[in-house]
Amino acid sequence: MNFLEERILRDGQVFGNDILKVDSFLNHQLDPSLLSQIGEAFHERFKDCGITKILTIEASGIAIACFAAMKFNVPVVFAKKARSNNLGTDVYQTMVHSFTYGRDYMVTVSRKYISPEDKILIVDDFMANGLAMEGLIDLCHQGGATVEGIGICIEKGFQAGGKLLREKGYRVESLAIVEEMGENGIRFREQAS
Amino acid sequence: MNFLEERILRDGQVFGNDILKVDSFLNHQLDPSLLSQIGEAFHERFKDCGITKILTIEASGIAIACFAAMKFNVPVVFAKKARSNNLGTDVYQTMVHSFTYGRDYMVTVSRKYISPEDKILIVDDFMANGLAMEGLIDLCHQGGATVEGIGICIEKGFQAGGKLLREKGYRVESLAIVEEMGENGIRFREQAS
Repeated sequence: MNFLEERILRDGQVFGNDILKVDSFLNHQLDPSLLSQIGEAFHERFKDCGITKILTIEASGIAIACFAAMKFNVPVVFAKKARSNNLGTDVYQTMVHSFTYGRDYMVTVSRKYISPEDKILIVDDFMANGLAMEGLIDLCHQGGATVEGIGICIEKGFQAGGKLLREKGYRVESLAIVEEMGENGIRFREQAS
Repeated sequence: MNFLEERILRDGQVFGNDILKVDSFLNHQLDPSLLSQIGEAFHERFKDCGITKILTIEASGIAIACFAAMKFNVPVVFAKKARSNNLGTDVYQTMVHSFTYGRDYMVTVSRKYISPEDKILIVDDFMANGLAMEGLIDLCHQGGATVEGIGICIEKGFQAGGKLLREKGYRVESLAIVEEMGENGIRFREQAS
């Protein structure tokens, strides 16, 4: 069991069979020591890919991306969910459906920050159905960039996102994959460490 | 002139007399070297205050807070703007008016992460009228915490926020204070470095 799986078991809270709250360390309050380890783990896995940029989506992905960026020493770009007056019209956009909020939302990134020379690592805190990741991949392709990989902190392995993305040929590295959870606790997928 | 003022002059874009775009390095694309310097600058100014926690507001404040947290080695808490299904009801909330978006929005933080023992440093990328900072101060006070200081990357010195907060007795440290801007460029307030 790795450092993140251990922390999830210690401080995560399970509600029903689907909701895992990790807001004490990952996406509301943030533990900088843990996030530094997460950044290091992504760097260890993708350091030979020539990553030029880390792409994520606001809001909780930003922290993950920042700690990863420190290890890779490359810029972060975070895609925006809200309509911003300041981004202008020279943007790439894609529509993403959120099951959590039960609605579609537009995701936007300035054209200036994704280019054909970029080899991009996409990161986020959670992946379930993978629709946000599909949106970020679409933004990369609109800009002609290469998606070198996807780094996820916690994947819900019982939802389809990870499987679909891997079948499409993307390299998805999830530090913790929850196979099932419920009253009896959390069971993680066995992974080579 | 300090490192941030130099970077603003080099890469910032001024529109009219009020809009300063710094999205190539501070709040859309993020330069990790610059943000590391920003974190170090805040640490240098507030290192003797016994800071226990860094509070910010999503989304662009999160990056600033993360890089500061690395230097202080304390947790970050970021207040949420969207209604999240996952935060529960045990929260502190306050209403903030956004001039940028022309509407009021609710800012929420879980009660678990602000306590009377906390000595809090509030950080953000921009301050203009200071209403978001007033909201974060309100959340701290609801939790009984002490606001040790406010660290801002870019203050619009021609708007009232900084003056009002300093008059109320808060220690506001802005790394760059824009006194005026327009066709003739940007003039910064002289500060002891």
